Amino acid sequence: MAAAQQQQLKLGILAGGGVLPGQLAARLEEQGREVFIAAFEDHAEAAVIAGFDHHWVRLGLAQQIIDILKQNNVGEVVMVGPVGRPSLRELKTDARFLKILTKAGLKAFRDDAFLSVIIAEFESEGFVVSSIGDYLNDHLAVIGQMGGISPPTGAQDDIDRGCAVLTQLSPSDVGQAIVVQEGVVLGIEAIEGTDNLIHRCGLLKRAGPGPVLIKLCKDGQSRRADLPTIGPETIRRAAAAGFSGIAVQANGCILVDRDMLVQQADQARLFICGIDGGANDRS
Amino acid sequence: MAAAQQQQLKLGILAGGGVLPGQLAARLEEQGREVFIAAFEDHAEAAVIAGFDHHWVRLGLAQQIIDILKQNNVGEVVMVGPVGRPSLRELKTDARFLKILTKAGLKAFRDDAFLSVIIAEFESEGFVVSSIGDYLNDHLAVIGQMGGISPPTGAQDDIDRGCAVLTQLSPSDVGQAIVVQEGVVLGIEAIEGTDNLIHRCGLLKRAGPGPVLIKLCKDGQSRRADLPTIGPETIRRAAAAGFSGIAVQANGCILVDRDMLVQQADQARLFICGIDGGANDRS
Repeated sequence: MAAAQQQQLKLGILAGGGVLPGQLAARLEEQGREVFIAAFEDHAEAAVIAGFDHHWVRLGLAQQIIDILKQNNVGEVVMVGPVGRPSLRELKTDARFLKILTKAGLKAFRDDAFLSVIIAEFESEGFVVSSIGDYLNDHLAVIGQMGGISPPTGAQDDIDRGCAVLTQLSPSDVGQAIVVQEGVVLGIEAIEGTDNLIHRCGLLKRAGPGPVLIKLCKDGQSRRADLPTIGPETIRRAAAAGFSGIAVQANGCILVDRDMLVQQADQARLFICGIDGGANDRS
Repeated sequence: MAAAQQQQLKLGILAGGGVLPGQLAARLEEQGREVFIAAFEDHAEAAVIAGFDHHWVRLGLAQQIIDILKQNNVGEVVMVGPVGRPSLRELKTDARFLKILTKAGLKAFRDDAFLSVIIAEFESEGFVVSSIGDYLNDHLAVIGQMGGISPPTGAQDDIDRGCAVLTQLSPSDVGQAIVVQEGVVLGIEAIEGTDNLIHRCGLLKRAGPGPVLIKLCKDGQSRRADLPTIGPETIRRAAAAGFSGIAVQANGCILVDRDMLVQQADQARLFICGIDGGANDRS
């Protein structure tokens, strides 16, 4: 599909939770691009998408989602916002979704692998699949210290230790956040999510400089499907839990409203920095 | 030191938490071996060691521990029971402990590496350092199904997935327990301990067959310092959290009172099996 033709087609936002689907839609409309939101029931937030052309869809009804996007003249799609991992057992699925599941096989149980299969399925229908980073690049973490608070002595060792563990864990395609304090790994994220990870590590922390949250992309993570995200709640929780700061992968992590978030971190006396994810730093 | 000479010397138990120090002491006394327990304050349980010749010691006072063992004619030591990771900042330490810390360097922050340094220090003082598995081998997990409950369909896939992730994580020297349900990693253990891991994964589980707890030795884990352990509380929590069963590394995991524990698992309708840990299965 030629770029000119794409421009005439709408951009479809497959909307999960949080404020990002709305921010992306607003940004695109400012730029004169028409948007259409397919909002996942039980995941997308009604208030966030209310002002935009949208339709509620169910996660397991793949053919319906594809049909609705086509009927609404969508030529390019972006997946935005967390969807969580539904229990396949509880999900109402159509034949198309089951076909995707069959293609995915065991990969269906792994976040990124499954998302890659879904991306391929959209592409087979002629959609261009783009990354939120392409459109909200002022939300991406940049390298180095981002706020006014400098990391305390020893924080770099904790960041290095966290990166080393996450890099080893990366091929497993599980969560990619970790909390380290003075070299000790307090917690590793799996399905519980970063907010819960921060909370429990706050209860496990020791005397001394506060723990550091480190968040990287997974090895081979599709940037088109899912980027690690830090929002106001992350900062609030990390501060409440006595953390010293947050290190995220530069160009590989979304900071929702980056400038505002960095201000919030400054006020909470948290350092916030973007790091080179090394082997994980893929585009 | 000749074996005959060792036999005349006492066996020193460096006692952490739980009932195992007492069980080991009782077993040895039954066999006519004299024991002496150096019980770590804040870790060992007074009721467990009460009936045996013992002395309370503080973790950071290394020279005192060595002196007490020698004064009590100890020639061989076994470390038994969890000690937890003290904050070095809060620990009262003597010069000897600081020397060990200096030798350990950054390894001091990693469980097994630090324990290896401590073992070497004991050996440099002429002590033989043995493994609890040498004396309580009827507490070790054996290969295959250990109770009357068979793993449900799909449990083997969960066990394989868990082993694969733990094997990848293993060189990092963090926790070696994981919970998997239908291929989804619900939780990975770091410093919080297996009991907390089970509890939170119970809250995260989905419909369908219950999650499986998998517990392996770490790569290069010193069997003389620390073996993964499953006790009655593990079974109780796993049952309360709706797990389907537990898989542990055969010959690499202690089941406290194995026969009783397997009975308890049967009653709770949990399968319990010993697995070959593959690359992790070291002696």
